[in-house]
Amino acid sequence: MIDYTIDWMPENGAELEANMNEAFEKIVEERERGISGYYFLPQDSRMIVEEVEATLLPTQTVQEADTVVVIGIGGSSLGAKALDGVLRSITPEAKRMVFLENPDPVEVSEKLESIDPDKSLFCIISKSGGTIETTTLYKIVLDRFGLRPESEHKERLFVITDEGSILHRYAEEHGIKSYFIPHNVGGRFSVLSAVGMVPLTLAGYKTCDILKGAQQIVKAFFDRQADHILQKGVFYAGHWQDYPMNVLFAYGSFLEDFAKWYVQLWGESLGKIDAQGERVGLTPLGHIGSVDQHSFLQLIMEGPRDKTVTFLKVEHFPTEITIPDISLKHIEKNDYINGHSLGELLDGECEATWESIRSQGVPTDGIVLDRISEENLGELILYYELLTSVAGATLGIDTYNQPGVELGKKILVKKFH
Amino acid sequence: MIDYTIDWMPENGAELEANMNEAFEKIVEERERGISGYYFLPQDSRMIVEEVEATLLPTQTVQEADTVVVIGIGGSSLGAKALDGVLRSITPEAKRMVFLENPDPVEVSEKLESIDPDKSLFCIISKSGGTIETTTLYKIVLDRFGLRPESEHKERLFVITDEGSILHRYAEEHGIKSYFIPHNVGGRFSVLSAVGMVPLTLAGYKTCDILKGAQQIVKAFFDRQADHILQKGVFYAGHWQDYPMNVLFAYGSFLEDFAKWYVQLWGESLGKIDAQGERVGLTPLGHIGSVDQHSFLQLIMEGPRDKTVTFLKVEHFPTEITIPDISLKHIEKNDYINGHSLGELLDGECEATWESIRSQGVPTDGIVLDRISEENLGELILYYELLTSVAGATLGIDTYNQPGVELGKKILVKKFH
Repeated sequence: MIDYTIDWMPENGAELEANMNEAFEKIVEERERGISGYYFLPQDSRMIVEEVEATLLPTQTVQEADTVVVIGIGGSSLGAKALDGVLRSITPEAKRMVFLENPDPVEVSEKLESIDPDKSLFCIISKSGGTIETTTLYKIVLDRFGLRPESEHKERLFVITDEGSILHRYAEEHGIKSYFIPHNVGGRFSVLSAVGMVPLTLAGYKTCDILKGAQQIVKAFFDRQADHILQKGVFYAGHWQDYPMNVLFAYGSFLEDFAKWYVQLWGESLGKIDAQGERVGLTPLGHIGSVDQHSFLQLIMEGPRDKTVTFLKVEHFPTEITIPDISLKHIEKNDYINGHSLGELLDGECEATWESIRSQGVPTDGIVLDRISEENLGELILYYELLTSVAGATLGIDTYNQPGVELGKKILVKKFH
Repeated sequence: MIDYTIDWMPENGAELEANMNEAFEKIVEERERGISGYYFLPQDSRMIVEEVEATLLPTQTVQEADTVVVIGIGGSSLGAKALDGVLRSITPEAKRMVFLENPDPVEVSEKLESIDPDKSLFCIISKSGGTIETTTLYKIVLDRFGLRPESEHKERLFVITDEGSILHRYAEEHGIKSYFIPHNVGGRFSVLSAVGMVPLTLAGYKTCDILKGAQQIVKAFFDRQADHILQKGVFYAGHWQDYPMNVLFAYGSFLEDFAKWYVQLWGESLGKIDAQGERVGLTPLGHIGSVDQHSFLQLIMEGPRDKTVTFLKVEHFPTEITIPDISLKHIEKNDYINGHSLGELLDGECEATWESIRSQGVPTDGIVLDRISEENLGELILYYELLTSVAGATLGIDTYNQPGVELGKKILVKKFH
């Protein structure tokens, strides 16, 4: 269960209502016209999960593997990494996941050292099929481990891409098993497609439950039973010039990759040139509590009033530590925390920080998970995707493209020719 | 060697010159009046390093240890973590470092599992001496490992704090070895004090060389041989309303913790209420290339013109991988990269992204390290501290305090009483 709260005072009722209705209608239209297809993933991806469970999990290759290597970058890795980061704590039996993303020779060398190819499954993920980082890292993996796709090695290779892409055609050439991403689902909205579901299912996560949680909020949203999403998205987009930055303050180190996933989703979707040719956009910032109270809180408290802050927290942790009843001489003032759990301290810090930021008139809101579960994470993913769509619809931009990244790709190719 | 470039056109010469001189004079005054003391650390900390090297490194306890555990948060951990993250690649023989920072029961449980107390050294670091997260995690460590500070266990305990703090008094009570932080050096400016130097020296890093690199840029700055720092700081502060956000785009995954250190330094120093009672501030964002080209580049390229971008890169990596000459059928268009090194690809991505962002009129600048070395990292640390001081002096704020974090601390204590 997730509890959503919005702390700012509701604005003019009739106008807000009209803006919410307008955003809602746009999204219904986007869905009906197939402009974006992520709304259907919670249902459609069940087939993929069931197929992986029925045909791959029982094989000797998968059974004997202890590692799932994801070769992909950006939308092809961030989502699965975020889910692995959070769900690992309740799924200790899941196979280890290694993400080969950044073409950084130091990091890649270290990660390759840790991989035993005979006990690994490799997912090569690229929507377009031609992502330079991904195909390059794949070549390095083939070379380093002597993998020959034309041999029985192909049983440990899985390709996830758009149907008909150059990567799909490569896979067909060698008989490598391929899974497809719907054409109208962009990378940053694709974690609940084969992009996330195949590697996470191979690793042993309960992906069906992730989809179940996601489906619940899709249904609630389109039934107008989750209007808080509309309310928040319309507020953020309507005030983008007052509050150009949105901070996600997530309490728990395991949420670090989730915060990165949010930054990609929000930043790449909502920084655009609008229909009038104006540059508009909201800048996402991901921070982790309580660590970043010692880093970023001062700026939120006393710096310019240019940020909204969302607190994301979990009520009950799967692991707990009781703070021992030790009194350190001269530091007795801190004994008030003895006997409490470490999770209670973290939660207390979140509540105290939230209260102090709210007291400064900063628009705050909260997302409180009762516990870490597959359903909750699925819901959280879809919640943020819907919120992004609402904000984009209100801003009057194309939420789903990313034309600004093409120039750099062209310059790169020229540099090496 | 580090090469610094500024891409934006110089502004009105006489005015710029006057602003740079004014900022410089303020910093000279801050130094002379002892308002901040970090300028002296590169020289003063040599004694600490030499003492640790002479008296601790040869002991059996240190020799047999394979892990240095840092118990600290914010300014007490981020700096050492940043240096460990970067220098590890050229110092593979250094002892493993574990940072106990966040009071997150999931993460702490996992890290405690990985610690063998008989082969570990524990640095308990808190400037005030009473940081609730730090004293709590210390109690958990004492309890979990059955460490008794009154026994010979104290040989593996080290306290780093302000002289006379409650933590110092606690250490004295038990005869635990203490190191001090100068009173006029705040947490986020303290990495070159005992805060960073003691754990890093214990781990086996060449800390003297870090200090040497730092000293070079302090000298250059006060000799007016590094005026690019003044130029950049004055520009950022003078245009804080046009460009309220400063992005550090660092190429290399090993720079991730360095980017976090920068975010703390910049955010906590430069988000303030100024002498006129106005809220002013610059918001730092840390991003890692090339990964975040797939996440944040679109927003920089087409979103509002509200950001400056600094590119940080390394020319030569200590480890390299040659991209094998493999042609993937149907993906031959990517063969242009074959035979190059992975570092060349990363560098090419940096250059291409830099060029594409510059083409949009975004103010960009560059920091290029010829290689990863202790001297370069020491210089980079001090460069950013000086830049922060220049920006703060130009903004007319107190760069070195953090009054905004006190309210949350008070609310926290009340919650548990």
